Amino acid sequence: MRSLDICLTPALLHLFPLEQKVVVVIDVLRATSTICVAIDNGAKKVMPIPSVDECRKYESDEHIIAAEKNGVKIEGFKYGNSPYDFMGEKIAGKTIFLTTTNGTKCIEASKNAHKVIAGSFLNLDATVEWLRQYDNDILLFCAGWKGHYNLEDTMLAGAIALALEDETNQMSDAVLHAKILYRLARPDLVRSIKHSSHYNRLASFGLKKDIEYCMTPNQNPVIPILDVNGLVNLEG
Amino acid sequence: MRSLDICLTPALLHLFPLEQKVVVVIDVLRATSTICVAIDNGAKKVMPIPSVDECRKYESDEHIIAAEKNGVKIEGFKYGNSPYDFMGEKIAGKTIFLTTTNGTKCIEASKNAHKVIAGSFLNLDATVEWLRQYDNDILLFCAGWKGHYNLEDTMLAGAIALALEDETNQMSDAVLHAKILYRLARPDLVRSIKHSSHYNRLASFGLKKDIEYCMTPNQNPVIPILDVNGLVNLEG
Repeated sequence: MRSLDICLTPALLHLFPLEQKVVVVIDVLRATSTICVAIDNGAKKVMPIPSVDECRKYESDEHIIAAEKNGVKIEGFKYGNSPYDFMGEKIAGKTIFLTTTNGTKCIEASKNAHKVIAGSFLNLDATVEWLRQYDNDILLFCAGWKGHYNLEDTMLAGAIALALEDETNQMSDAVLHAKILYRLARPDLVRSIKHSSHYNRLASFGLKKDIEYCMTPNQNPVIPILDVNGLVNLEG
Repeated sequence: MRSLDICLTPALLHLFPLEQKVVVVIDVLRATSTICVAIDNGAKKVMPIPSVDECRKYESDEHIIAAEKNGVKIEGFKYGNSPYDFMGEKIAGKTIFLTTTNGTKCIEASKNAHKVIAGSFLNLDATVEWLRQYDNDILLFCAGWKGHYNLEDTMLAGAIALALEDETNQMSDAVLHAKILYRLARPDLVRSIKHSSHYNRLASFGLKKDIEYCMTPNQNPVIPILDVNGLVNLEG
């Protein structure tokens, strides 16, 4: 039986060999949620970009450039890291160059894995179904906040682990604990993170609407999968 | 108000500046528990030693040398990492050279902090009382298992954080989550870790008695504090 484990923060990634693994990168608030929204709204691909300066270089009529740092959209950019920025017809067919504080860096860091997808509550059931096709070991890779642990990413990892409980070997305490958190949180996901650090950071910027969107499961049932050109729609 | 944070594994320690911090090193199963037992049984000091080979060099009539790796006592050593090894009159006045898989390395890694003590369920209330005397920021440093997160260390960190909830700033998700875990575990601490990786590792070596001892609070109400010569009894 294949194994399932959780990397709780990018600062722990060196403990997990990636080769032959199927990796789900998780940055619930907000990068991987936003990527699901963009792909579901017809974006051709999403390119994770390491820095704001590099991202700026890709500006053109056929591209969308989007940048967020420390929870805030960068000055001079029309698009940030809000799911609401990536809804509607303007997104269809566009290539999006996206740089964020945590999530986009984790996608880049995972590229040596067998397969890499963006996971969020928005594509939770689709992600679980997609994972069922593989015999490879699974790593759920939480983006956290600047190397630190966070609650919402761990909860989503717990939700995926719980759904695959009977089909995978789950030996680590990280998985045990993520499932406990998710079971507690499930009745009201938004409420369960009201004391979390990133909830309060984003809420202080007036982004409660973003949080509510990102914590509502299965609104964008797509699989953004990494190929050499960035994240594309598996079905696209 | 001073802050309280939790470092969930040694692989995250670089994210936490130690200067001016008061650090509690936590390796419930078993190094910091064993250190509390040794100090409570009158050991003069406990020296954390990085390797088995180095530890062997200190063998003498006045010393006790003790070594554990991967949960097992090393061949050729009379003492391992079991609390039961360090009870009784034979311990009084002795200097103990101890090397273990996780905990002793974390004590060494913390030495630039303002103060460093060994915390365990065995000295839980004493640790909380001791922390109350300081205005310094507090770091609860979980030893985990080879860089990975573990449940029992996080639970103890949660117990300490909960006791100091009204007296410290607790902003991180790691603290939130540790308190949730401890609240769930409190009614039956041993039962709460029965599915954890290290419980099963130690149980498979016939060490359930060790686990039960280490998970029973306030049996050894001492403060093993790090000075230049190792860990000594604060009251000694």
